Amino acid sequence: MKLLRFGAPGAEKPGMLDKDGTIRDLSGVIADFTPETLAAGAIETVAGIDPSSLPAVEAGVRIGPILKRVGNFIAIGLNYVDHAHETGSPIPAEPIIFNKAPNCLHGPYDTVVIPKGSAKTDWEVELAVVIGKPASYVAAHEALDYVAGYAVCNDVSERHFQTERGGQWTKGKGCPTFGPLGPWLVTRDEIADVQNLDMYLDVDGVRCQTGNTKTMIFDVAQLVSYTSHFMRLDPGDVITTGTPPGVGMGMKPPRYLKGGEVVKLGIAGLGDQQQNFVAYSG
Amino acid sequence: MKLLRFGAPGAEKPGMLDKDGTIRDLSGVIADFTPETLAAGAIETVAGIDPSSLPAVEAGVRIGPILKRVGNFIAIGLNYVDHAHETGSPIPAEPIIFNKAPNCLHGPYDTVVIPKGSAKTDWEVELAVVIGKPASYVAAHEALDYVAGYAVCNDVSERHFQTERGGQWTKGKGCPTFGPLGPWLVTRDEIADVQNLDMYLDVDGVRCQTGNTKTMIFDVAQLVSYTSHFMRLDPGDVITTGTPPGVGMGMKPPRYLKGGEVVKLGIAGLGDQQQNFVAYSG
Repeated sequence: MKLLRFGAPGAEKPGMLDKDGTIRDLSGVIADFTPETLAAGAIETVAGIDPSSLPAVEAGVRIGPILKRVGNFIAIGLNYVDHAHETGSPIPAEPIIFNKAPNCLHGPYDTVVIPKGSAKTDWEVELAVVIGKPASYVAAHEALDYVAGYAVCNDVSERHFQTERGGQWTKGKGCPTFGPLGPWLVTRDEIADVQNLDMYLDVDGVRCQTGNTKTMIFDVAQLVSYTSHFMRLDPGDVITTGTPPGVGMGMKPPRYLKGGEVVKLGIAGLGDQQQNFVAYSG
Repeated sequence: MKLLRFGAPGAEKPGMLDKDGTIRDLSGVIADFTPETLAAGAIETVAGIDPSSLPAVEAGVRIGPILKRVGNFIAIGLNYVDHAHETGSPIPAEPIIFNKAPNCLHGPYDTVVIPKGSAKTDWEVELAVVIGKPASYVAAHEALDYVAGYAVCNDVSERHFQTERGGQWTKGKGCPTFGPLGPWLVTRDEIADVQNLDMYLDVDGVRCQTGNTKTMIFDVAQLVSYTSHFMRLDPGDVITTGTPPGVGMGMKPPRYLKGGEVVKLGIAGLGDQQQNFVAYSG
């Protein structure tokens, strides 16, 4: 299934995509997609429904983030060999875990605001993993059982805040609007091989990132297992799993977003996002 | 006011402490203390109530964490001069921000579990700040207006996970049960000077940490303001503001918790916590 949320910001309803690409309204069946409803079996509840039995939603409706909120917005750093190279970083011996502020969660087509004082706002197309069941100390071979599905994430990043303001990366990762997630939560059964998905990102129509999840250093199962040894993963937690080469920081000279750009990104089977980037205006 | 949550884990009710130290049941007035109810004015709603008009709760009831969940569990590193010294770290030029997993939130008297594979579990008494209003790009001189109140936090930390497993501190900060927060959310009006509060932590009855919030490098107003420039702070977000000297990592030789210890900690005006630490047992 391709599950989604549609409607005005803060007033989204749950929906699903039918085979013709029409959004069908699930609000008569479940309240919303939230950490709580995922924990209570929302995905299982809607799994048996014939989409054609649901009201069709008018085309062109805004699509919101795939969840009303995320519990923990976890991110993995330097998880593609070529991206580690382009940033001048060594290949990590273990996954690097950092956090995006949960409230930077954002719609896949919504405008992204370059934060006040930013000089180095950058893009990162990523495969995001949505946790479906509580996971603590799970082995890699069973880790995918804890995954509800996948989505596209733009792990928008401010490099100066991230690495030149002292301490930890979180300063450059959770600015308001820095977490576009969607358009769909694609349930795990729809993805035959999560480690073989093409991904791309364009800035103003020019291809910047080209990658495939097969070049991850640590695969999704390893990441879920590994992370679950340091914290409990709960339904509605999200792990965004790192970006392939082609970020602005890796260009020579580096290129950053100033406002006025259009960023489009996508992953095979998971859909596309597109954001207008605008400068902060108070 | 001293606000709190009492009852069995997962089934807590909201309450307040009366002047005699008796817990009064607020569940007839508000549903719970959550990010959502704080945003909707829960603290203002209960502010006018005469505690003696509320049902008294039997003494000895379990006290839970002060909130049902936190939105973002933010922590500040190396924020006391003497603690930076004891860890061999330079004084930070800017606040160091890292994250605890939101779901490590834990009751102030509940058992803390030393994680599987841990060799370096440590303690940290801290002043935690609970955000009451959305805060973005706020100036230091107005930052306290966004604070709902304060609480004691034990920022339990696994030093090997935190600093010797690659990358970011978050690995050693959000293990399950690592976030005791309470016993009370003490509203801001009750604390005359948040920068002059004595704090302590004992392990098995031996004083380990002695400090006062006056030796913070960055004060609470500066921390709220600073953080709000990198992410939006929302009601129910928590910033725990760093620890004074006396952690196990700073001892010569270092001392870590193995299980079987009793840790007691407190801050003047904010109450005390006490946790039994136990080894992970599967």
